[in-house]
Order: sequence, then structure tokens, then C-alpha cells
Amino acid sequence: MMRIIEGAVNTPKGYKAGGKHIGIKRKRKDLSLLCSERPAVFGAMFTTNIVKAACVNWNKAIYDQGGPVRALVVNSGRANACTGVQGMQDNQAMAETTAAALGCTPEEVLVASTGLIGSLLPMDCITAGIQGLAADIDREMLSGLDAAEGIMTTDTAIKNVAVEVPLGDTVVTVAGMAKGSGMIHPNMATMLSFVTTDADIDQSLLRRTVKAIGRDTYNMISVDGDTSTNDMAIVMANGMAGNSRITEENSDYWALYEALQYVSEFLAKEVVKDGEGASKFLEVCVQGSVSHDDARKMVKSILTSNLVKTAMFGEDANWGRVLCAMGYSGADFNPDRTCLEFKAGGKSLRVIEDGLPVPFDEEYAYALLQNSEIVIDVILQEGTGKAVGWGCDLSYDYVKINGEYRS
Amino acid sequence: MMRIIEGAVNTPKGYKAGGKHIGIKRKRKDLSLLCSERPAVFGAMFTTNIVKAACVNWNKAIYDQGGPVRALVVNSGRANACTGVQGMQDNQAMAETTAAALGCTPEEVLVASTGLIGSLLPMDCITAGIQGLAADIDREMLSGLDAAEGIMTTDTAIKNVAVEVPLGDTVVTVAGMAKGSGMIHPNMATMLSFVTTDADIDQSLLRRTVKAIGRDTYNMISVDGDTSTNDMAIVMANGMAGNSRITEENSDYWALYEALQYVSEFLAKEVVKDGEGASKFLEVCVQGSVSHDDARKMVKSILTSNLVKTAMFGEDANWGRVLCAMGYSGADFNPDRTCLEFKAGGKSLRVIEDGLPVPFDEEYAYALLQNSEIVIDVILQEGTGKAVGWGCDLSYDYVKINGEYRS
Repeated sequence: MMRIIEGAVNTPKGYKAGGKHIGIKRKRKDLSLLCSERPAVFGAMFTTNIVKAACVNWNKAIYDQGGPVRALVVNSGRANACTGVQGMQDNQAMAETTAAALGCTPEEVLVASTGLIGSLLPMDCITAGIQGLAADIDREMLSGLDAAEGIMTTDTAIKNVAVEVPLGDTVVTVAGMAKGSGMIHPNMATMLSFVTTDADIDQSLLRRTVKAIGRDTYNMISVDGDTSTNDMAIVMANGMAGNSRITEENSDYWALYEALQYVSEFLAKEVVKDGEGASKFLEVCVQGSVSHDDARKMVKSILTSNLVKTAMFGEDANWGRVLCAMGYSGADFNPDRTCLEFKAGGKSLRVIEDGLPVPFDEEYAYALLQNSEIVIDVILQEGTGKAVGWGCDLSYDYVKINGEYRS
Repeated sequence: MMRIIEGAVNTPKGYKAGGKHIGIKRKRKDLSLLCSERPAVFGAMFTTNIVKAACVNWNKAIYDQGGPVRALVVNSGRANACTGVQGMQDNQAMAETTAAALGCTPEEVLVASTGLIGSLLPMDCITAGIQGLAADIDREMLSGLDAAEGIMTTDTAIKNVAVEVPLGDTVVTVAGMAKGSGMIHPNMATMLSFVTTDADIDQSLLRRTVKAIGRDTYNMISVDGDTSTNDMAIVMANGMAGNSRITEENSDYWALYEALQYVSEFLAKEVVKDGEGASKFLEVCVQGSVSHDDARKMVKSILTSNLVKTAMFGEDANWGRVLCAMGYSGADFNPDRTCLEFKAGGKSLRVIEDGLPVPFDEEYAYALLQNSEIVIDVILQEGTGKAVGWGCDLSYDYVKINGEYRS
């Protein structure tokens, strides 16, 4: 059985990590470094935005070439996107400096940047910062919690998790960190997630797994609907737990899958809970649709509807907006067979039965929606398709944060 | 030459119209009626939402059957959507009552409803209201301006326009009314637009024209991105101007096209200017894309991005968010050849040149963006595709209006 433990991305065997303030931002930590004693295979998902930051193109090239990798360096404060040739050179310099400090090649170093689009990186302070941070990490003066802090932008809390899972006689550890705090359309233009494990797993199997899990976790959250130029989710596996290598979908594979799924879903939810201006956490479930794909489309459409989000902010059981969002989602369904429930704080309220409104007590509904975590449950009666996703409401603070961000 | 005139939907020859308060809403006008002395051919566009109000299904059936029509009856306050069999029966009763009062068949009566989803219509007051309104209109006690008022929901002003255009020796009149005030995703769940003309035009040619113009006008505006259950745009043409019947794309056709395009674009812009909580009117132009379709995708993606909308509210020249929205639009373009300008109040500011930021004076940018009408101009260098669309910013008031709507 999988077990949640205290720990961070440096907890799986053979990883070291840290983060510190080097002067890109005014006061908060702005550089993180993660390295693996042995080369790690890795899986990844990258933004689908046509406008890609230099770091995304760098990592994709390493991905296509095959890996393995030794390290990951991340700066926050500036996204190094829309920075042209100079941005690519600066990105390469980050990889080279990290490689020199750790004793590996630049092609073994993944890079990530997050922050404002269109500003060049302050390379003097980054170069010195990487050298200093590498030395601190080598002396184990810092931990994965510092690394989780160094990747934050408008996040109000670190997003960190660790679990362990027995594979036969061997215990394997999986840990992760992420940052938001807008996501699919974030304020500072990035959702980043980095997961480490000491499991020994075949790289192509790991890569398929990362994509499958990413589809059900990172790709099922939304804060404000803008897919950023820098988004990425990376899982590194260095094999140092010593489990017998996983090369097929056996019981060890599914035990590890569960741990990776748990860590990814945990981090994805943490990102939306800390979404810009979010006052409520929303879980949307659709079940009984013709296909899983239809269910996913409906979940995403509900989660990204400004009208649904403002209704939840206003604690208003305005189910018409939910049904409307399903209707323009592109998914196929029969409105006349749709049922809909709001759930929160142990209470439940059915508002649509077979496509028709169920009269309900407004006071009861209002009391239910005053909870800070709300489930919107859609029950169709047409098939076995289902999906779940997570989002947040749209509040005055969202407008405040994003209307005043650069100023 | 087309000429803007004073007038409303009853100005073209042979139309009568009016609107009054009948008790669906507390105080404001909530029923409108428009009728044509002679049968009118019509073209229309309806919502693509799978969840369709009873009136949309009714009108689509008449459209498919071919028309012509004699009248249009519209209630505001309740949308008659998600109301099942009872809703369909109520809609039919509205058409029957109108037909009896005007002396035509129910199949010659178009119906529209707008307002809250999921409430049944108060049929007693609607039946009596239609009879009273038909009598008032017959005595010409009311005008098209009253009709434009009767279709309003959260709109803060009526949306009304009239033009005339000479076709040979004959002067043809085109007039229209519309309501918002969310649009593609409106608060009270509807964008409605109704245009009348006395031009004589072949119905199938009119229908193609309505779709072409609708694509470039109503389908290029966005307030909050939710396609409603009740949206429709209808153009009626009763031929009473006596022009020689238009059956092909000759010079008369293009003169009428210009008038229809002007009226539709005017009404579409009025809808977004009066968008819920809007403090700024945005025009987004994309030119030089590979195809028109690519340009339209980018325009819509920029207009619906919450991050772009909040930046405009905050008067912040945050061009990274514009480029980011283009990048996830699904359109094909080369970021490295993209140029971007903000324009307002006679001022212009180029912020991206060939994909790279142009340093600019923040004070100048801030002064420019303090204008209430802002143009975002995207210049690509890849082809002859272009598109223009209109939207508004995302303000505290949008959250307030939609967070407190039903309460």
C-alpha cells in the first residue's frame, strides 16, 4: 500500500535539491536546483502553446534525443519567453553553468523559467547564483522544500508532496513539487510540476505513463483558461531504489502508477486551490456520458465558464449556467436525461432531474454553497464515460491581481 | 450611398412594432411584438449550444420548413430554456395567441425568449399581454423603440439602428434592434438581434447573406465566452420597398449587403459596449495571417482571454498575454515574425517587432490605455488573412453582476 510521508523532491534516493534568493526577484527565493547522483530517465509533458519559452524548446530537444538527465535548474521571476536568440543563448548558458558546477554535460540539464514574459534574464546574477547554489546543495545545506519555494511566483504557499510504495521487497519513493498559480492560463505564465522517484522503470513506459496521468490530472485543472508559454510537468526516475526494473504493466507498475497518480493529482489540486483570487475549490464530475472524451470536454467547459465561476463566488445554485456550459462544450449528450447535483460539507442538493429543474429550498442551497470546497456532480444516463476535474471560482481578487500585476 | 437615418424596426415599409410591461419583470418592459403587413422571407442564425430553448427549436423548424413569416414575439425576464414539454407547449401557445391576434397562422410567428434559465413562463399574463400589445400596435400607439426596450434584460441602453440605401430608383430601408448584455456567454443567457428590411430579395440568397455577415459581426464579439441557449439573429425582408427583386449578387445586392453589414456590425458592437461590467471597448485586428480562419481564431482567443481582459481593465500594456492567447488559439503563425501595436485616442504604441519586445515608455503606454476604446493590432507577415472582432475588459463589476445575479 502506498503511504504518504514527510519529504520533498530530495527524499527519493540519490537526489539533492535546494533553492535560494539570488536577486531576480526583490526578496523571495528565485532559483532552484535539483540533481540526481545517477542519470535519471524522464517523462514529460510540455505546453501546447505555439509561443514557447526557450526552456521548453531546450527540454523538448533533450526529450526527443532521449535523455537520461542529471539535473534540473529553475528560475522564477522572468519567463524567458519572447526573448528571441538572446533568450536561447541565455537558456543554454544556464544549462552550461549548471553542468560545469555539477560535473555533467549541458544536455543532461533540464531548464525551466517562470515569470514575466518578454524580459531577458539577468545572467550575471544567475551564473553566480547557480554556482553558489550547487555548492550549498553539495554540502546538503538546503532541501527540496527550499527548491519548492524557489519556483514560486504569485503562489501563496509551497506545493510539495512525498509518498512511498513497496514494490516487492523494495520501497520506492515518489515526491513532487509544483507551482501555479494561474494554470491553464496563468498570471505569471506557468504551471510547473517536477516529480522525482528512485524507482527503476523503463523510459518509454515511464513516458507513456506520464502522458496518461497528465491527461487526468494537470490537464484537468483550470484557473483562468490561458495555456501558458512555459508549462511543463516532468518526472525523473533514477532507479536507485533498486527494485527489479519495471518494463511492463505488471503489479509493480500499477503500484508505482498509483503513487505517481496520487502525487500528480495532489499537486494539480494544490495549484488550483492556490489559484489567483480563488476563494472556493471546485470539483466537477461527469459520469454516464457516451465517452470519456465527452466527459472531459464537459468538465473543462464547466470549469472554465466565467458565469459558473462567478456564480460559485456568489454562492448561487445557478445550475442553468452549468447546463449551458455543457451545451457549448462540443461534447455530445442528451439534455433531457441530465441530472445535476451540488455537494459540499456533507450536504447534497439535486437541482436537475432528467433535464428538468427540481424545486429546492434557496436557504439550504445557500448554506451548502457557503462551504469552501464544492462538488458539481453531473449524472448522464447514456454510457460509461466519466471524468473529474478541478478549478476555482472567479472573484474580485482575480481581477485585482491580474489588473494590477505589472504595475 | 447608404445613409444612417432616425428610425427603428418599424421604419421599413409595412412593419409595425411595439413593446410594453406586462408583469413578467417587476417594472421594465418585458414583451415586444413586430409584425409585417405582407409575408416576409427571412434568414437567421441560431445558437450552436446543444441545450436549446423552446423558442430556438420552434424557429428552426419554421426556418427548415421555409417561411415566410408575418410576426415575431419576444418576452424578456425568463428564457424558457430547460423547461421540457411544458416549455414547448408554452412557446406554441405564445405563437398561437400572436397568430390569432394578428390574423395569421402560428407557423408564421417567430418566437424569442430571454432571461433566467429553468423557470416556466407566466402564461396568463403573457396571453393577455400579447392581445393587449397587438391592439396597441394596430392603433400605432407604440414604436420600434418600445420594441427595442421590451427585449432588454441587464442591458443599460437600447440597441437600435436604421439606414436607407438606394437600389436604382427605389430607396430601401434596413433597421435593427438587439440585446446583450453578455453575449457569447451572457448573464441572462441571450444575445438577440432582429433586423427588418422592406427590400425584395430572394430568400435563399438572403439566408446565405445572413450567415456570411453573422460570421463577421455577431460571431466576432465576446463578452464572457458562454454561448447561450437562446441566441439568435434574424433578418426579415418583406419586399414592400418595391425594388426589382434581388436574385443574384449584382450591384443592388452589394448595396443592400453593405446596409445589412453596417446594421449588424453596429448592433454587435453595441452589445459588447454594453457588456456586463465593461469599462473599455476593445477592437482586435489581425492581419497578414496565412488564412482568414487563422485570423478569426486569433482574434477570438485574444478577446476571450481573461488575462488580456483584466490587463486592459488595469490599463497595462501587457503584450505577453496577447501573444500567449494567440499561441493557444489553435491558429498557425510564426511568433518570430509577429508585430503588435496598441492604439487609442489617436496615439499608437508598437510593443513587439518581429517577435521581440520594443522598449517603450510606460507613462506613454499608461496614458494611451486610459482611453475607453482600445485597438489591439496584430500584424503578421505570412499571408493575406485578416479578421476583426470586438470585446470588452473584465472588471470588478463583471464579478459583482454575475456573482449576485439571481440573489
